Amino acid sequence: MKITEIVITPIAMKDPPLRNIQGVHQPYALRSILQVRTDDGLTGLGETYGDRAILTALRAVAPRLTGLDPFDLNGLERIIGHTLGSAAGLATHGLVGEASDEKTLATVLSAFEIACWDLQGRALKRPVVELLGGKVRDAVPYSGYLFFKPAAHTPSPPYETDRWGEAMDAEGIVAQARRMVDEYGFKSLKLKGGVLPALDEADVILALRDAFPDHPLRLDPNAGWTVATSIAVGHKLDGVLEYLEDPTAGISGMAAVAREVSMPLATNMCVTAFSHLPPAVRENAVQVVLSDHHFWGGLRRSRELAAICRTFGIGLSMHSNSHLGISLAAMTHLAGATPELTYDCDTHYPYLVEDVVQEGVLSFTDGAVRVPSTPGLGVDLDLDSLARLAEQYEKCGFDTRDDVTPMLAVDPAWDPVVPRW
Amino acid sequence: MKITEIVITPIAMKDPPLRNIQGVHQPYALRSILQVRTDDGLTGLGETYGDRAILTALRAVAPRLTGLDPFDLNGLERIIGHTLGSAAGLATHGLVGEASDEKTLATVLSAFEIACWDLQGRALKRPVVELLGGKVRDAVPYSGYLFFKPAAHTPSPPYETDRWGEAMDAEGIVAQARRMVDEYGFKSLKLKGGVLPALDEADVILALRDAFPDHPLRLDPNAGWTVATSIAVGHKLDGVLEYLEDPTAGISGMAAVAREVSMPLATNMCVTAFSHLPPAVRENAVQVVLSDHHFWGGLRRSRELAAICRTFGIGLSMHSNSHLGISLAAMTHLAGATPELTYDCDTHYPYLVEDVVQEGVLSFTDGAVRVPSTPGLGVDLDLDSLARLAEQYEKCGFDTRDDVTPMLAVDPAWDPVVPRW
Repeated sequence: MKITEIVITPIAMKDPPLRNIQGVHQPYALRSILQVRTDDGLTGLGETYGDRAILTALRAVAPRLTGLDPFDLNGLERIIGHTLGSAAGLATHGLVGEASDEKTLATVLSAFEIACWDLQGRALKRPVVELLGGKVRDAVPYSGYLFFKPAAHTPSPPYETDRWGEAMDAEGIVAQARRMVDEYGFKSLKLKGGVLPALDEADVILALRDAFPDHPLRLDPNAGWTVATSIAVGHKLDGVLEYLEDPTAGISGMAAVAREVSMPLATNMCVTAFSHLPPAVRENAVQVVLSDHHFWGGLRRSRELAAICRTFGIGLSMHSNSHLGISLAAMTHLAGATPELTYDCDTHYPYLVEDVVQEGVLSFTDGAVRVPSTPGLGVDLDLDSLARLAEQYEKCGFDTRDDVTPMLAVDPAWDPVVPRW
Repeated sequence: MKITEIVITPIAMKDPPLRNIQGVHQPYALRSILQVRTDDGLTGLGETYGDRAILTALRAVAPRLTGLDPFDLNGLERIIGHTLGSAAGLATHGLVGEASDEKTLATVLSAFEIACWDLQGRALKRPVVELLGGKVRDAVPYSGYLFFKPAAHTPSPPYETDRWGEAMDAEGIVAQARRMVDEYGFKSLKLKGGVLPALDEADVILALRDAFPDHPLRLDPNAGWTVATSIAVGHKLDGVLEYLEDPTAGISGMAAVAREVSMPLATNMCVTAFSHLPPAVRENAVQVVLSDHHFWGGLRRSRELAAICRTFGIGLSMHSNSHLGISLAAMTHLAGATPELTYDCDTHYPYLVEDVVQEGVLSFTDGAVRVPSTPGLGVDLDLDSLARLAEQYEKCGFDTRDDVTPMLAVDPAWDPVVPRW
């Protein structure tokens, strides 16, 4: 089995105005969809970020992969290293930590690696989960991801307003959570913070605790707080949070908070590459790492991260960016085969209103997605939807994620400085 | 594909009187040979220690594996954990560190896991190296493993004397090394120490350095020395050794030596399970870990160890016990797919005079073994040889490795206490 052709399609999907420390989501989220074809007529699917810089890197690598055996993941990594080795770290939107060469390589590797796993599974007529060592759970539990948000984008995009309404205070977030839980069955809840003053967000968590006494709760202000503020929130929410995610920036900052608060600290910002693990372990900076196959280098590297976390007594959870069904399938296979993953995974999927994969495989029951049982990732492209979302990409007017500019449209005086509180 | 039957055959193979800190090898080394059969007519091979305690554990697990898919390595681990979970750590001969439940489980897991990889490869018609991510090298370099030894066993066993002759001083070891290098082409040399007084062994290393100016050299006294002696040897061999392996016992002892000597310290005694890694990292006790799939839990766990070593800046080498061709094949596939492995691997294979696998696949050229390219591990049983070695096991008179008793036959006053110098 040899790779003969790779088609990379940037797409734009409608996205609600979800708020975070950097501002607010644009009306469209960008993704790259990969179709990797082989000489025996199979097509493997991959999905990653759609920002121009990543797209450029993907397009630089793709032609070099002709002739590669999709089982040869070491060869894949070697080719990508040779192609991009001296490239500067790609700029990213910063919500997943700082850019570096290491992360650029890992991000590009992941996109193709996922497609290779899909091809392996299709060739062997086995779901990817079986190639990863077999299912440790039949369905993967996800957490309900709560966002502060206005009712609509500013200025309004050329499509219908999303169904989630405004949520800019405790009442709105509790209502959003209620709907998440009712519709999807989530058993845990995560609030994206960094929007209200820190102690006000703690009050929103307390309101969630009242409304959902049995749901594990998480709060993630994306490093929007000082160490002192983080400690104050930690004290206020003592005994309330399952974990506090990235309250402040950097390994040393997190370590300073960890020494003073009772709950585990989680991160997808200060530990986002293998080189961050030794200092994080040395300082006991984080107690939970949120893996994300998109920037940790794919499924194989994510399993290595799991082994490191198991060995060093660090918990493992899973991070999400706005994504489509190919990524949800990959996340579900990975989590399905990873015993170290004991926290419910994050997902933005409930905010999705259009997908590139055919319906019917991925759905939430009791907050969990059943691990697909058909060959490969178990999802197939809906080519009409892909074409429509590709056209949407061409028309949407931007090619890079930017949460600041749309926020300035909402509030021209808005200052994106961090830490903010 | 489901497992239908497992045949476990203990065998005894002729073994020269190789000396070490615990005494001297018995005239026969014991191994367990696994044949794991499936409903589609395939047989996967495994090989591990032959000691009674391991054999008992293997036999307890085997019937529980009927019906298991050989791809389901997570399921394999689960079943073994359930079967042996509360068993006390099996006694081992101590040259690979202390026994524990963790290592017992890992050892039993490895034996079956290897057979499962062999089955996966045979089913997919791909060599195991491809299932591990693909070749990073075409041939795996091994080091020439030098042993102090008398000319013959005491009392002499009922078979011809080995071809290596006596080597109890520098001259004998240099001659042994010359023969190893001439016949096998090894590019590096390892001396098993713990036999002569420590500084005398350092002199043997200096003689090897004179005779082989370009060969990386290693010395391994199996924790036979005090910290002070280890440091004295380290100073004497400053600039001479590629690494000094297990000069003294324990993570703290090794750390104390590491602070005072210039060469890397390597281990297959104080870091032999994942739980040993955090303290070893914390104390910077070792700079090279010798992996060994037999007690680290198989190929998958060995790859996890490689990832941990890469992440924490620890070198990776590979340990050997007396072994047959199934293990050599597994070691070669693993090393062939593991970029982190940058040191030549250990092997006892040159001392082997009889094997259970058919000839022709495994041979040394320029000190390296070509990674087999046929499906699975690439080796097949010679059933006549297996039957003969199984009969030899029944007749050999022991069922557990014991280097002390034969040493007492050589020297009734011999005292196995460690540290000895």
